Amino acid sequence: MVQKPSIPKGTRDFLPADLVRQAYVSDVIKTHFQRYGFLPIQTPAMEKSSTLQGKYGDEGDRLMFHVLNSGEKVKKADTEALANNALGRFTQSISEKALRYDLTVPFARFVAQHQHELRFPFKRYQMQTVWRADRPQRGRFQEFTQCDADVVGPIGPVLEAEFVHLFDDVFHGLSLKDCTIRINHRGILAGIAAYLDAPDRIVDFTVALDKLDKIGAKGVAEELKQKGFSTASISKLTPLLSLSGSVADQLDSLTTLLADHQQAFEGIDHLRTLLSFISPLRVSHLAFDLTLARGLNYYTGIIFEVSPPQHIRMGSIGAGGRYDNLTELFGLKGINGLGISFGLDRLCLVLEELDLFPKHLAQSIDIVVLHFGDAYMRALLPHVARWREEGLRVMCYPVDHKLKKQLNYANQIGSSWVVFYGEEEMKKGLVSIKNMDTGSSTMVKPEFVSTSLGTI
Amino acid sequence: MVQKPSIPKGTRDFLPADLVRQAYVSDVIKTHFQRYGFLPIQTPAMEKSSTLQGKYGDEGDRLMFHVLNSGEKVKKADTEALANNALGRFTQSISEKALRYDLTVPFARFVAQHQHELRFPFKRYQMQTVWRADRPQRGRFQEFTQCDADVVGPIGPVLEAEFVHLFDDVFHGLSLKDCTIRINHRGILAGIAAYLDAPDRIVDFTVALDKLDKIGAKGVAEELKQKGFSTASISKLTPLLSLSGSVADQLDSLTTLLADHQQAFEGIDHLRTLLSFISPLRVSHLAFDLTLARGLNYYTGIIFEVSPPQHIRMGSIGAGGRYDNLTELFGLKGINGLGISFGLDRLCLVLEELDLFPKHLAQSIDIVVLHFGDAYMRALLPHVARWREEGLRVMCYPVDHKLKKQLNYANQIGSSWVVFYGEEEMKKGLVSIKNMDTGSSTMVKPEFVSTSLGTI
Repeated sequence: MVQKPSIPKGTRDFLPADLVRQAYVSDVIKTHFQRYGFLPIQTPAMEKSSTLQGKYGDEGDRLMFHVLNSGEKVKKADTEALANNALGRFTQSISEKALRYDLTVPFARFVAQHQHELRFPFKRYQMQTVWRADRPQRGRFQEFTQCDADVVGPIGPVLEAEFVHLFDDVFHGLSLKDCTIRINHRGILAGIAAYLDAPDRIVDFTVALDKLDKIGAKGVAEELKQKGFSTASISKLTPLLSLSGSVADQLDSLTTLLADHQQAFEGIDHLRTLLSFISPLRVSHLAFDLTLARGLNYYTGIIFEVSPPQHIRMGSIGAGGRYDNLTELFGLKGINGLGISFGLDRLCLVLEELDLFPKHLAQSIDIVVLHFGDAYMRALLPHVARWREEGLRVMCYPVDHKLKKQLNYANQIGSSWVVFYGEEEMKKGLVSIKNMDTGSSTMVKPEFVSTSLGTI
Repeated sequence: MVQKPSIPKGTRDFLPADLVRQAYVSDVIKTHFQRYGFLPIQTPAMEKSSTLQGKYGDEGDRLMFHVLNSGEKVKKADTEALANNALGRFTQSISEKALRYDLTVPFARFVAQHQHELRFPFKRYQMQTVWRADRPQRGRFQEFTQCDADVVGPIGPVLEAEFVHLFDDVFHGLSLKDCTIRINHRGILAGIAAYLDAPDRIVDFTVALDKLDKIGAKGVAEELKQKGFSTASISKLTPLLSLSGSVADQLDSLTTLLADHQQAFEGIDHLRTLLSFISPLRVSHLAFDLTLARGLNYYTGIIFEVSPPQHIRMGSIGAGGRYDNLTELFGLKGINGLGISFGLDRLCLVLEELDLFPKHLAQSIDIVVLHFGDAYMRALLPHVARWREEGLRVMCYPVDHKLKKQLNYANQIGSSWVVFYGEEEMKKGLVSIKNMDTGSSTMVKPEFVSTSLGTI
């Protein structure tokens, strides 16, 4: 049966030209990760469901991809649960594994599991695919690559400053200007929840606040009202949503408003210390964003989120923050964590939109060896082997198609040179080389091909 | 609830030391792929089930990992199929996607789907994870990485020779000696099936023959008997299973035995042409292996399989072959394919067992900056930024632990140097650098750190 070839929605194929660009971005990220002293790790694509479930809030549980148990094991399907619409229980009865939803929870599991093999502070980077059953849209895929750098162990202000600089260095490395690194602090959010007389409602409050961009101040007020916040509480929010001035100015205003709330005070103090560590010359734009709450459940201190330049319509291209209790879920107490993540796919889209990819990236074949018959090709192969040893990327055209067709092909795939080796060349013990850009050509001994290329 | 941290059976975490080694191997493979003119592509981890199912024989269908449909869609579970033990139909009712089982079928799907964006011959390499629900054992994982190079389009003998050379170049690049590249040809197997008077039973015959290593000649005979091959047919096998001499000698013997069978003759001729193209000096060991049938269904011509050095007990570390009808399943006719695959994980195990990893691989931090208080660290940060710009990998110790503890840490993570910047250094406007190998140290201006490192 013939099938129409296609792939699942929200997934992508990468052609060579796509991958060359993706590799350019990921190499820049990796280089900077390494310069900041991060070491690479990898974790499995499939984790035990119990490792992932309940770590990302309700949305995360809903959007997780579950892997069906193999073979006979699906017989254990809990059809009663299915009949009762208990889909979670039904899923559990036929699936014990799920695909990575992010790199942070697997990292926490990794740290707890390998704690005796690691030295703390442990700085790791990880660049792997994650999967989310989210509705696909521009810049949002069901399968995408995250590039994370995290540190676990003792944490001081220098580390937080370094993460801001790391964001900045990567954007600078990509010639990407005018990104905004937005910061907030969970302590401030907790202080505000207390200030609104709802100290135990911080999650409800931050979930609503996180939507300010989408539904506006009125919408947030409406949502809080529905969630049972009093009108008096909600009205106290107004001055908080209209802070202005520099980050330092906004923190000053907040101090005045939230002076009675210890958690907020600590959060503000924390951000002030961070500011003192950040070289003002280096950072794209640093902004304080009170509405920044991050959907994920595990953040406990500072929160980062990076927006692309304003005229690019796309969600965040980077994010991160402090999480202090995450490894405890896996039995390892007293370990603090701090990290950031780059969205590789979105970064590529942004660079494409801004035309920031270097022009030379496409070139990836140096020589196409034209085919004038198996006997000539056979005789030339040992020389081809030497050119490759010398580092050249050489493709042998596989059959003796017409010359025009072969030249056309070499041109289309962007080969820099072609090599001719036919009757005349064999007689003379030479090969002809043609520069595909200039059209100029020359004959040389096969031994001297790689040294001759620059001269024609 | 505290969970004992663990990962699914057959999967692995990679610590930094593991990954450095893996990257060494995959870089060697990638470099040679590129020198042979292959371009990179990637396909999604999740393919539509219909793309993968039925392409790998019964075993493949059984060992495929299926991804459960998200959310409400699991309600469509076909409980009747479950009750009737029709597990395949049940699985289909709740799953539309599966994880990649190899890279060849997704590549065929890719070629058919993107045929108008590609130039033929199209040479691609692809290094990605695949998943198989196989019973885990040494060198066999449920999640592992394949490194494939394939060409589709017009194919000539030079390409087959190049794949043999490519195997050889990679092993040479890894200093891995005494691998055996075994070859066979489907035409020869088809000819033998005809010779055994069972021309339409080639699958049954090759499946039995493939087990010669495990169950011996008697076992193969027994299995063929059970499958209904006549005793006369089976006895004709004997001379075929005791071929000896060089590859050319064995092909000569085969020619005599199978002279009446056109397919075998063509296959033998094909291998002879290949031999004429292969430089005898370069190849690890080239062996003709009549029992080589490859479990996968799609091979149509030459078959490759590479065994590690004899004393290493492990399955094949590379494989490949010719497949001519694979893109036709996805609607693209007349496209031939040829390719090989390296098993990255097994190659790493082999190199580890033979102690072939270069010694210098572990070193990955150049400098640990010791922490004597936030004020010193803050003042030094702009210089740290410069060192990183100069390419150094620098880690700032995050808090002012006792000096001994910090030095101990720098030593354990294998940092080459440590930098001191405390009260004395600040006064003098200098930093102290200590070489962690030799113990020698010096004081220099922060601007000159990177140029001073080589001198201490």
